[in-house]
Amino acid sequence: MDKRGTLVVISGFSGVGKGTVSKALVEKYGYRLSISATTRKPREGEVDGKDYFFKTENEFLSLVDYNGYIEYAQYVGNYYGTPRKFVEDSLAEGQVVILEIEVQGAMKIREQYPDAVLLFITASSAEVLKNRLAGRGTEEPEVIEKRMKRAAQEAESIPVYDYVVNNEEGRLEECMAQIHSIIESEGCRIARRKEFIENLKNGLKEFEN
Amino acid sequence: MDKRGTLVVISGFSGVGKGTVSKALVEKYGYRLSISATTRKPREGEVDGKDYFFKTENEFLSLVDYNGYIEYAQYVGNYYGTPRKFVEDSLAEGQVVILEIEVQGAMKIREQYPDAVLLFITASSAEVLKNRLAGRGTEEPEVIEKRMKRAAQEAESIPVYDYVVNNEEGRLEECMAQIHSIIESEGCRIARRKEFIENLKNGLKEFEN
Repeated sequence: MDKRGTLVVISGFSGVGKGTVSKALVEKYGYRLSISATTRKPREGEVDGKDYFFKTENEFLSLVDYNGYIEYAQYVGNYYGTPRKFVEDSLAEGQVVILEIEVQGAMKIREQYPDAVLLFITASSAEVLKNRLAGRGTEEPEVIEKRMKRAAQEAESIPVYDYVVNNEEGRLEECMAQIHSIIESEGCRIARRKEFIENLKNGLKEFEN
Repeated sequence: MDKRGTLVVISGFSGVGKGTVSKALVEKYGYRLSISATTRKPREGEVDGKDYFFKTENEFLSLVDYNGYIEYAQYVGNYYGTPRKFVEDSLAEGQVVILEIEVQGAMKIREQYPDAVLLFITASSAEVLKNRLAGRGTEEPEVIEKRMKRAAQEAESIPVYDYVVNNEEGRLEECMAQIHSIIESEGCRIARRKEFIENLKNGLKEFEN
């Protein structure tokens, strides 16, 4: 496997457990999780530097000026961004870095890191997804419907991803093993081993004449 | 994972242990190994239906007429071919089928089975490969040199493969785990999940209005 690390983007429908999957992957395999910066206020229980880097708008925008985010966007009046330094440093160290990010952000990552691995996590069907959202029992029917509509829109972007992984209820380990396999196997893909192949070919050339 | 099986082509330099790897994968993971047909005479210890299907030239060529081989070729006066039925039946049953085959044959497989997974097994460098060939102690220097020259030619075709996997001496398990990861993860690749994504999108459409 070549030295540079692997950037893994994880997206998925709301309710599909992508946050749980990401954190469990970090715990089990020692991957690094990128933490977003945001200007929104911390919610109860959220910890600065763990859940988000909480910043004032001035702080956030001054880092934008220094090209400090791989991607950033504004939602409902707040900024959210992926700090560049953590990702770059981790990749330089040969680490696997996970970005949990929504579809639009993933597209921006793809542009800047063409060799990022894009994973979309899903339930096995629309029914299963709806049942999972409803099963939480905490959401109003209108909220569920809104999320399902958003899922329908997000599904249009799935073909831009490299892999689709199912996360069935109660089968987290299976989903994690699947993602681990993907990351391991990506290290052997031809596109990632150009340098190795070049060296091998050069080494073999002396036997050709 | 969709129902149809996965066709896995394993090629690699002479001396790199691809036969050992293939057989070990079959044993450990229950994959199926395609057995070639040939018109060459059995060598001592070779078993018909296990090492090869040994055939007369008439038998071999009559199956060619019936499109009975996925690919076939003539080397040093003998025919070698990959029987189609075993591969097709196994794929229809959703099995993983391994074809251990040389570079030219692999290209023919790619044409007919665009979604086949092509793996090239290698040593970590030309030096290591030469030492492995020499280390057997059974080959004349000219034979080793000939094999190294052939390796140099084969290396030109590596970019057509999907994955390059190292098989270091004494690390068979690692190589097998790598290949197993590749096969597992290929089942999640977007290109193999078109039907699933279509169904998912259709299921979600009713929530869109």
